[in-house]
Amino acid sequence: MALTQARTMPGTLELLPPDQIAFQRMLDTVRRNFESFGFLPVETPVMEFTDVLLTKQGGETERQVYFVQSTGALEKPAEGLPELALRFDLTVPLARYVAEHEHDLNFPFRRYQIQRVYRGERAQRGRFREFYQCDIDVIGKDQLSIRYDAEIPAVIYSVFRDLAIGPFTIWLNNRKLMRGFFESVGIADPERQAHALREVDKLDKRGAEYVRDTLAGEGFGLSADAASRILDFVQIRSHGHADALARLDALGVGNATLAEGVAELKQTLELVRAFGVPETHYAINLSIARGLDYYTGTVYETTLNEHPQIGSICSGGRYDNLASNYTKSKLPGVGISIGATRLFWQLREAKLLGGAASTVQVLVAQMDETLLPACLEIAAQLRGAGIATEVVMESGKLGKQFKYADRAGIRFVAVLGPDEIAKGTVTVKDMRKQDQVEISQAELAGALRAQLTQETPA
Amino acid sequence: MALTQARTMPGTLELLPPDQIAFQRMLDTVRRNFESFGFLPVETPVMEFTDVLLTKQGGETERQVYFVQSTGALEKPAEGLPELALRFDLTVPLARYVAEHEHDLNFPFRRYQIQRVYRGERAQRGRFREFYQCDIDVIGKDQLSIRYDAEIPAVIYSVFRDLAIGPFTIWLNNRKLMRGFFESVGIADPERQAHALREVDKLDKRGAEYVRDTLAGEGFGLSADAASRILDFVQIRSHGHADALARLDALGVGNATLAEGVAELKQTLELVRAFGVPETHYAINLSIARGLDYYTGTVYETTLNEHPQIGSICSGGRYDNLASNYTKSKLPGVGISIGATRLFWQLREAKLLGGAASTVQVLVAQMDETLLPACLEIAAQLRGAGIATEVVMESGKLGKQFKYADRAGIRFVAVLGPDEIAKGTVTVKDMRKQDQVEISQAELAGALRAQLTQETPA
Repeated sequence: MALTQARTMPGTLELLPPDQIAFQRMLDTVRRNFESFGFLPVETPVMEFTDVLLTKQGGETERQVYFVQSTGALEKPAEGLPELALRFDLTVPLARYVAEHEHDLNFPFRRYQIQRVYRGERAQRGRFREFYQCDIDVIGKDQLSIRYDAEIPAVIYSVFRDLAIGPFTIWLNNRKLMRGFFESVGIADPERQAHALREVDKLDKRGAEYVRDTLAGEGFGLSADAASRILDFVQIRSHGHADALARLDALGVGNATLAEGVAELKQTLELVRAFGVPETHYAINLSIARGLDYYTGTVYETTLNEHPQIGSICSGGRYDNLASNYTKSKLPGVGISIGATRLFWQLREAKLLGGAASTVQVLVAQMDETLLPACLEIAAQLRGAGIATEVVMESGKLGKQFKYADRAGIRFVAVLGPDEIAKGTVTVKDMRKQDQVEISQAELAGALRAQLTQETPA
Repeated sequence: MALTQARTMPGTLELLPPDQIAFQRMLDTVRRNFESFGFLPVETPVMEFTDVLLTKQGGETERQVYFVQSTGALEKPAEGLPELALRFDLTVPLARYVAEHEHDLNFPFRRYQIQRVYRGERAQRGRFREFYQCDIDVIGKDQLSIRYDAEIPAVIYSVFRDLAIGPFTIWLNNRKLMRGFFESVGIADPERQAHALREVDKLDKRGAEYVRDTLAGEGFGLSADAASRILDFVQIRSHGHADALARLDALGVGNATLAEGVAELKQTLELVRAFGVPETHYAINLSIARGLDYYTGTVYETTLNEHPQIGSICSGGRYDNLASNYTKSKLPGVGISIGATRLFWQLREAKLLGGAASTVQVLVAQMDETLLPACLEIAAQLRGAGIATEVVMESGKLGKQFKYADRAGIRFVAVLGPDEIAKGTVTVKDMRKQDQVEISQAELAGALRAQLTQETPA
């Protein structure tokens, strides 16, 4: 029979078990922290009705959408777009979910969602067509206190502290502050503001001089002074809490919107500190815009101090109205998203991921098949104590079994020979320390539990 | 602006947070048990290339497949089937995964996979187009000891013991035993065996008499005696370990295949007992066939003793060769699948699911916004002790905050008023017991931790 070549679509990240374990631990850490702050789990179907999904998106999004058809539908002549499509983020499904279940939810509604999303991107290194997003949002009904804006950095801090991938900074800005400032230098039109922001976005890549020249150039037509003031403004970064407040005060009160933005950002910073986020881990960065239409207040980005090239690993912000396409209710909210698949891939590329231990903690070796029942009993004991235990079911050379444990990253190998069984003991080899002890069967689970708990990864 | 109606595709199970928490706990319990037996995590992309996915399936499968196209592909004239399709189970992706990564895997390869699959079913109550499968498989290279067949019921037992959904029975059979027996009554042709099995499958619905008459009728043409013997055979069920062995011995040795099946099943039963599965929880059931082409040895089903109408909640078996479509390597294996979405739905319908506690364990109430920093400090302390804690960020009536906790299923409400802050205490209300204690801030986390651990659900 002719074989079909086993292969996967480019743009997906399919992992071998050791990497999958490391990735799963990352997702578990994210989830544990989301839950620890009182966010509730939500999962939505991967498919949405096309008209629901593409309510307001323009052509760009539509070109990246995957459409879904059952075989029956394929046979019908196509009229317009197919009925179903895969979600491209978790925000549109959240909006649909909240609108659909509005009367069954408690507000403020705090949800987390950790699922995959799909984008028909061109295949390219580091670009994914299927990737996990880990989102939290707090949604208010009619209104939502700005205090929630300060909780978000507290969650971000605790997630990345526990992921232990090096020092990081949570950058804060406020769209009102930005909008007010642009107005104060004479850019009042939202389209022109958007244009200016797109230029400012090139700051990192093209440098300050390039951006200043563009803004003061013929296409844009600002005065050299206004262009310089914009550049000074967007390059403001703080170092420490007091510095952040001082830099905001130094902006002065150009207009009401600017003043409101400054007040909101100051209040947020004060509360971020009250949440216990160390001031080494948050700062203001007045260049952060995060999309041009969606966010209306606080915006966030997060970067790894030692790996700025990775870019923002967690972003989001405050929006005025989540679900205006589906409901007349006003649903303001604030939230963030971590692109876990891309983050994992980047950390792996940057060699920032240590080798994860196997999910299997003990391998019970087998010397002789007549001893198998005794091995199974020991294994049941260990599992009862919460220790993940694999039993070698076929007898074979002990050396080969040790090698298997070593390659698989299994920490302990338990050996029960006739001697051990006679004495009621087990010989345990610690594959990491390469030492070996004989221990009574009654004490085995407790002893291993103690050693494993000592160094459970965060 | 015209609103789009927020709605989801029929055949998906989108849950409100309390149910989602209960469902998530179910998946967590399944995963913890899979890991406890040393199975390694694997995730595969939701899309597969159509030619890979549909290698050998017939028309039935194809009619149920969802095909996927990006917008670009939609614009091209359709030629044959679209390039991509959503997986309809986790077995084909496993075969593709093992063939693709064969040289990077350790054999026997023990993997678990908990992901959603997609079938274009007709919309119907209790039928899902998107549902979770929780699979484990052990895959050998060239050969795989039959001992692994005994490990599977041990995993099934520990999963459903921990799910605590009532007494259950793991039913075992062996296709060789079945095949040998059919040969011994004169049905040697595999097609005729398949036909007879389809009739036998109607046993529960149509009754023994109907099946016997069909087998002895004109369409099938067995002698009345042969039909009766088949009926006697497939109605064999055991009660207890010794009874199972005795019933197998009583079958006699009709032919070599039957003898082999009996020997395998006896060996499996002995080892299932050695794995510590109580004999109240496993039995032989010689009517179980589980599909007609795929399985070649041991087969499993699991039913809830008090809810037989739910049918099998966990099924699987032994197969000779996993991935013959993709590789010349011989890859025998054994595995099972739990259809978690359907199971959850059925348990809910049968009112077998207790109300799950919220993932949020403590709500820190707010009496006065000036006290918020103190509340945040207490919350950080609790989170540090692994207690999921939500803080009310807006001051409001205390009664309303208690009501919120009650509706959301949050067990404890912590109140910090000016008195408490002066004394360094917190007042804690246990919403379940409806009692209230004042406790020092230093002891709070420990005290709550102790109460919460006492009754952590399995």
